[in-house]
Amino acid sequence: MEKKPYVIGLDLGGTNSEFGIVDQNANIIASTRVKTAGHGNDPNQYVDDCVAALRPIIEQVGGIEKIHAMGIGAPNGNYYSGAIEFAPNLPWKGKIPLAQMFSERLGIPVRLTNDANAAAMGEMQYGAARGMQNFIMITLGTGVGSGIVVNGQMVLGCDGMAGELGHVIVEKDGRQCGCGRKGCLEAYCSATGVARTAREIIEKTDKPTILRDIPLDKIESKDVAIAAGKGDEVAKQIFEETGRILGEACANFAAFSSPEAFIFFGGLTKAGDLIMEPIKKAYEKSVLRIFKDKAKFLVSELDGAGAAVLGASALGWEVK
Amino acid sequence: MEKKPYVIGLDLGGTNSEFGIVDQNANIIASTRVKTAGHGNDPNQYVDDCVAALRPIIEQVGGIEKIHAMGIGAPNGNYYSGAIEFAPNLPWKGKIPLAQMFSERLGIPVRLTNDANAAAMGEMQYGAARGMQNFIMITLGTGVGSGIVVNGQMVLGCDGMAGELGHVIVEKDGRQCGCGRKGCLEAYCSATGVARTAREIIEKTDKPTILRDIPLDKIESKDVAIAAGKGDEVAKQIFEETGRILGEACANFAAFSSPEAFIFFGGLTKAGDLIMEPIKKAYEKSVLRIFKDKAKFLVSELDGAGAAVLGASALGWEVK
Repeated sequence: MEKKPYVIGLDLGGTNSEFGIVDQNANIIASTRVKTAGHGNDPNQYVDDCVAALRPIIEQVGGIEKIHAMGIGAPNGNYYSGAIEFAPNLPWKGKIPLAQMFSERLGIPVRLTNDANAAAMGEMQYGAARGMQNFIMITLGTGVGSGIVVNGQMVLGCDGMAGELGHVIVEKDGRQCGCGRKGCLEAYCSATGVARTAREIIEKTDKPTILRDIPLDKIESKDVAIAAGKGDEVAKQIFEETGRILGEACANFAAFSSPEAFIFFGGLTKAGDLIMEPIKKAYEKSVLRIFKDKAKFLVSELDGAGAAVLGASALGWEVK
Repeated sequence: MEKKPYVIGLDLGGTNSEFGIVDQNANIIASTRVKTAGHGNDPNQYVDDCVAALRPIIEQVGGIEKIHAMGIGAPNGNYYSGAIEFAPNLPWKGKIPLAQMFSERLGIPVRLTNDANAAAMGEMQYGAARGMQNFIMITLGTGVGSGIVVNGQMVLGCDGMAGELGHVIVEKDGRQCGCGRKGCLEAYCSATGVARTAREIIEKTDKPTILRDIPLDKIESKDVAIAAGKGDEVAKQIFEETGRILGEACANFAAFSSPEAFIFFGGLTKAGDLIMEPIKKAYEKSVLRIFKDKAKFLVSELDGAGAAVLGASALGWEVK
């Protein structure tokens, strides 16, 4: 049976819930946005409000009979259960069976996974990973997420929660991480981690840097990127160090699944070669000999507005 | 079509090449052994000599028409190419297309993979991993090997060489490893690594231990296990420390594939709870909260003589 022409993608973030109706060529035909918070504590109200916002754009493309399925990318999303489970930055507590809740209201199949897995699916469906059977997607945002594809399939694990490479410990007794443990990759290589590295250097050294012009608690990773772009040595050193940690971590990941490519996504990739070159250099220096010069290091081809919605929508195409 | 009743398994080690003819219930019906070295530098001579040794046991089970296929587990075995690639401890240099060489002589399909993957296949076919879709096999021998199963399939990677968890770096600038890098899991948690830990403690401390009765360069992991069994505090501490390193490494592996179980195989597992308890304790202490109390820690059900042959033979059953 021919698939219907469109899928709905939902990128569910802490602030906004972005919806898009997407065709097979990665065109977002129609879109809408709902604030994630502000619907009371009852997730039913949130879903009702979302469906109300979706109705007009569904009509716009010819009605629900034109929609094949819906995909949701959400923090702590569990593919197996279709639920968001204990997401610290969302308004709801416990396990929320969001896939089922949308499916019942819209009358179409709904798949849900975590945001980094959705990004990997998007890359495989429309982006830099088309045709790849083995790759690792690393999202460098407020946190560090990952989506791992092995033999052409998402690695979900026994519980649907696999692929948490941001919480691999890279520094024993290192920086405190939001997860309660110490030394996680995320504590160093997220946007937050980069800003923290900047603050540490400013506080602990007297190296000259234009970053000192910004109040210490206001420094963001974006400021570091801008400073590095202007040739600021401290800012360049921060990306060098962040890239080194990422590259060494990727060398360990290679020993796991020997991927054809590592694909990076998110704000930090906007620093371009400033971050990508140190990643590659550290990787090739530290990886086991049999893996040298094999893996590609790529930046997402979907980066920018709509990428996360496209990623979520790719889940919809998975529905047979 | 019904499968023929037997497969041949070959466990190809640095010293011996062990052959077994195996039925679907993991019974080794007939077996033979060929020295791996001593056939000159030409692998053709080795394969010819192996086939000559196999002929009588093949006749014993009713001839080659009773044999479904052959599986080989070998160091640096590459499943995709069917070749042994640059194995440091074998008599042949470069890439040896061993699967093809046996297949041409025997007239049956032959599959080859590395020894740890073969162990994982054996566990899935006949042992502790029956029915599991996601698990990690860790072999604690002269080195540390691994076979990773995700979604019911071996993780082979883009090049057939995935699953080298013995070479994940667990200690930055740590012990020199045989691979040329520093701080690999294998440098601490192999049998060799355990003996090395014993020698370090004896040399660097004056703690009393019966291990001092053995000449320093003669201490083996087996001696440490015997001493620990007798209640020797230093020996128990060595297993405690080895288990801690393994458990912390497994906590990082969980962030990758969230396996249902970690299954351990090899000589060190004979230490039983002395090693397994510290592994579990360190794992639960250091793993990300969402993975706590989920993974089982098991010892191979095939441990002992014939296990590696069974593992190799399981590859034969994979042939459709």
